[in-house]
Amino acid sequence: MADYLAPLEDMNFVLNEHLDLAALAALPGYEDLSPDLAASILEEAGKLATNVLSPLNASGDRAGVKVHGDAEVATPPGFRDAYQQFTDAGWGSLQFDPDYGGQGLPFALAIPVQEMWHAANMAWGLCPLLSQGAIEALEVNASDELKTRYLPNMISGRWNGTMNLTEPQAGSDMATLRTRAERDGDHYRIYGQKIYITWGENDMTDNVVHLVLARLPDGPPGVKGISLFLVPKFIANEDGTLGARNDLQVLSVEHKLGVHGSPTCVMSYGENEGAIGFLVGQEHRGLACMFSMMNNARLTVGLQGVSIAERAYQLARDHALERKQGVAPGETEIGNIVKHPDVRRMLLTMRALTEASRAVAYVACASVDFRNKHPDPAVRALHDARSALLTPVVKGWCTEIGPEVASLGVQVHGGMGFIEETGAAQYLRDARILPIYEGTNGIQAMDLVERKTRLDKGAAVDSLITDMRAVIASANETGQPELQTMAGQMNEAVTALEQIKTRILTDSESDIYFAGSASFNYLMMMGVVCGGWQMLVASIAAAGRDASNSFTRNKLIIAAFYMDHILPRYLTHASAIESGSDSIMGLPEEAF
Amino acid sequence: MADYLAPLEDMNFVLNEHLDLAALAALPGYEDLSPDLAASILEEAGKLATNVLSPLNASGDRAGVKVHGDAEVATPPGFRDAYQQFTDAGWGSLQFDPDYGGQGLPFALAIPVQEMWHAANMAWGLCPLLSQGAIEALEVNASDELKTRYLPNMISGRWNGTMNLTEPQAGSDMATLRTRAERDGDHYRIYGQKIYITWGENDMTDNVVHLVLARLPDGPPGVKGISLFLVPKFIANEDGTLGARNDLQVLSVEHKLGVHGSPTCVMSYGENEGAIGFLVGQEHRGLACMFSMMNNARLTVGLQGVSIAERAYQLARDHALERKQGVAPGETEIGNIVKHPDVRRMLLTMRALTEASRAVAYVACASVDFRNKHPDPAVRALHDARSALLTPVVKGWCTEIGPEVASLGVQVHGGMGFIEETGAAQYLRDARILPIYEGTNGIQAMDLVERKTRLDKGAAVDSLITDMRAVIASANETGQPELQTMAGQMNEAVTALEQIKTRILTDSESDIYFAGSASFNYLMMMGVVCGGWQMLVASIAAAGRDASNSFTRNKLIIAAFYMDHILPRYLTHASAIESGSDSIMGLPEEAF
Repeated sequence: MADYLAPLEDMNFVLNEHLDLAALAALPGYEDLSPDLAASILEEAGKLATNVLSPLNASGDRAGVKVHGDAEVATPPGFRDAYQQFTDAGWGSLQFDPDYGGQGLPFALAIPVQEMWHAANMAWGLCPLLSQGAIEALEVNASDELKTRYLPNMISGRWNGTMNLTEPQAGSDMATLRTRAERDGDHYRIYGQKIYITWGENDMTDNVVHLVLARLPDGPPGVKGISLFLVPKFIANEDGTLGARNDLQVLSVEHKLGVHGSPTCVMSYGENEGAIGFLVGQEHRGLACMFSMMNNARLTVGLQGVSIAERAYQLARDHALERKQGVAPGETEIGNIVKHPDVRRMLLTMRALTEASRAVAYVACASVDFRNKHPDPAVRALHDARSALLTPVVKGWCTEIGPEVASLGVQVHGGMGFIEETGAAQYLRDARILPIYEGTNGIQAMDLVERKTRLDKGAAVDSLITDMRAVIASANETGQPELQTMAGQMNEAVTALEQIKTRILTDSESDIYFAGSASFNYLMMMGVVCGGWQMLVASIAAAGRDASNSFTRNKLIIAAFYMDHILPRYLTHASAIESGSDSIMGLPEEAF
Repeated sequence: MADYLAPLEDMNFVLNEHLDLAALAALPGYEDLSPDLAASILEEAGKLATNVLSPLNASGDRAGVKVHGDAEVATPPGFRDAYQQFTDAGWGSLQFDPDYGGQGLPFALAIPVQEMWHAANMAWGLCPLLSQGAIEALEVNASDELKTRYLPNMISGRWNGTMNLTEPQAGSDMATLRTRAERDGDHYRIYGQKIYITWGENDMTDNVVHLVLARLPDGPPGVKGISLFLVPKFIANEDGTLGARNDLQVLSVEHKLGVHGSPTCVMSYGENEGAIGFLVGQEHRGLACMFSMMNNARLTVGLQGVSIAERAYQLARDHALERKQGVAPGETEIGNIVKHPDVRRMLLTMRALTEASRAVAYVACASVDFRNKHPDPAVRALHDARSALLTPVVKGWCTEIGPEVASLGVQVHGGMGFIEETGAAQYLRDARILPIYEGTNGIQAMDLVERKTRLDKGAAVDSLITDMRAVIASANETGQPELQTMAGQMNEAVTALEQIKTRILTDSESDIYFAGSASFNYLMMMGVVCGGWQMLVASIAAAGRDASNSFTRNKLIIAAFYMDHILPRYLTHASAIESGSDSIMGLPEEAF
């Protein structure tokens, strides 16, 4: 099984050509950012990914995690050492607040680095991913005192963070959440059980800082009565050292399809005197605080789809170049299977989906940076809407791509793909969680259609379509036939997207089932058209470079494949949306 | 985890309305066949599936198979007893030759019964599936003496059969096969190693009858020098009792993604004095003999896709009816998730794909019966071409549906879907082998485009399209608006299919890469249009029944959903095919 190699040239291309690194570097605080700096950071991260994390991926999958009798979780051999190297080198602190030990780099630069961790070892990478979400929620919502006590150790990575939302009866719907909080002097006591707590307990960090949604006794019912609490395993002293052990513990870890190296914990709070919790933000406003952490977490979960796709592609490509079977068309003797058109179709689908989803994900993350830092309020507002619009697209579309590409990777291997030792099957197993966690893709689809499209009457979508049309115009202006062909393909897709948006705005008014019936197809259509938009951006950039350069030449070929083979998916989605809600709502419940 | 229940009403509907059971009963030898007989056979089979096989599915997955030190394979607890009940009741012998103990029933009737075995327990079901293939190859190709010695015990199920094709260097391409055979009096000696031998060794049957492809020293190179041999674990005496132990053994079993209860063996032949083998058919004509077993095996592997889809649907539906989350559109309080349009979309996609693929698979199998038994040579010829055309469609399309539906089943469960105890994940793991084995779907696609389309200049496809148009005309003649709508949708799809067929016939002549570039999309397009054809057949039958009957009413709703949401996939496939081979062949090999 080959080790993962970070696709540095592709990553640098996206940073420089897709999301305008120069514009990022012009933002206050990012003045040191340059293509060279970015490239050197990526190169260093790639070494850790290849040399340390990747070799632990298969072994971590086999070993899994175990709960000891004393409620401690043993992570797979090597994970702890790898994490030590990660924190020692400061990799966990890239994009965080320098006031608390962060390095203050753009989110968009942390993203390719994170892509590497998840490609190299997704189970391991979930630990820093969840920590990032908790850190962001605290940066935005916590009191200075809480920040001072907890953030430095979380940003350094010595302590990890978790998100505690789900309970057995409360999954996608938080309204029925039961974990309760009671006031107790300057803090609170937390009582309840949470499930699916990723890295909720482990032997890799010195402390686990849980962010827990719970209900105060006098809160209103439903989601408006939920508050957010910081509930640490060990309560931090004023100087940030470890104090008393809190009344919380792991009850069990789940036996899962994939990410075996990542402990998914059932956590119990307050079985004895009550777990001490500290309020984050205001009482009863917990869900808003949690969303400040969930939005970026959704982007990085989308990124995990890119990661696993990249890794699956690398393994399948290596196999296809090595494996000899059959005489391909135009050949006279048995050769490697990459010569067969249908194997090429699979590999190119994997690669085109990976490149397109990477570009869309990075561009969305850069939008978060512009939203946070740009001096012009109008630009900030534009990127506020843009990043909000793209968040469900990145989460939803890129996480559908992860399992699709991983499954193609299995297929390229033939019978070997079904054998666990090959490694391709693990990527599929690992990837299958992505469309589910951090808000199922059904939830993402509802977010896209309701809050990101209907709520602003399509304004953010219109703005995106305007940008897409500008790119189409630029492609046409190059005068190059192959770019004009792609521009024509994209133009049809964008026109269809605009029609579907109008259809959603109008028909949802007269048919209460329309939005929900259209939502998933709308999400996938938006994703595939966004992918085409970025492939056209790539093509324009590549066409402007030296045509004898094989890297840029190949970008054009992959983009053409995308337009021919991937983009036409919008036709099916549009047709399904246009059929309305009748055939979705028609079957009586008892007939299922 | 709910147990599987055979969908008897659906199965009987397909037998009676889709494939014309009355016409089957008019074939010589099938005179006893009636709707009542078929229904009672299905009902009995359903009991074994539900009560005996289904409860062993999850436990078999967990236990897996093990090789003992003495090269014996231990199957999961309960498998052997279940198999005993299966053979005692004569379930393995339904469609086989009465001269050797079979019951002489149509293949089309054995098919719903087999669907149940695979739905209830796919790992277990692989044992009779492979035996069926071996029996068919012997029925057609073996000498009377071999048949007399081996068939009765194989048909009864006391001995199981296997297919030995693959070697490490010879997978999809048999030309490089190395296992060798040497003449030794009235028999042969076999030497070599075979991999991926399903049920190659087990403790469930008394003997394993291997059909082995091997090369005689004087055979021509490539696939024309391959012969087929019967190589039993124990050599049968003249009276069919067990004789000497042969020189073959299992070396190891694979650690696979799924079907853990099914031993996938590495087999070694002739490590000592040479394994005794008996020629089946003629020397150097082994591949043709093997294909006589592989064609029906491909149909039944396609059927496994239907099976796993049905089971995944049942589990997801039960969950969706039970699980309460969120307030759906038009509702005032929290209800079960089946009320949400997007959950309906997933469940209806699962159900529509399952029903359509079931009908296509059964109809293809009935074509095999008509080909074998019909007194009119013209009808036999038509069904010879039709069954040959539909074989790669059933294998390719239905096995893509299996994992797709199983994956949707995981998604409907949300976080629980990723937890192994839920059971949904096992169906996905099990289903993932289907697009790979018995000829990868890439191979099926090449078979469809080359041998089943180009070789007869599209004649078999034209005949199929003519039949589809007749069904469209019938739907229009009902005068019922909903049927006419569906007929209109199908008409567009069939027109597109005809255009694509023409495009393939013409462009493949001028572009050696065209057929291979188009093949997979062509296979999927053919599958989805065939599914629409059968959904229209179902609709006409349903519309002709009592409209107040909820079963037939629901058939129309599912068919409408298929036309709205599934059939439009042809648009994407057609668009990709029309783009030609340029973007598939353009990327230089070193650029992958």
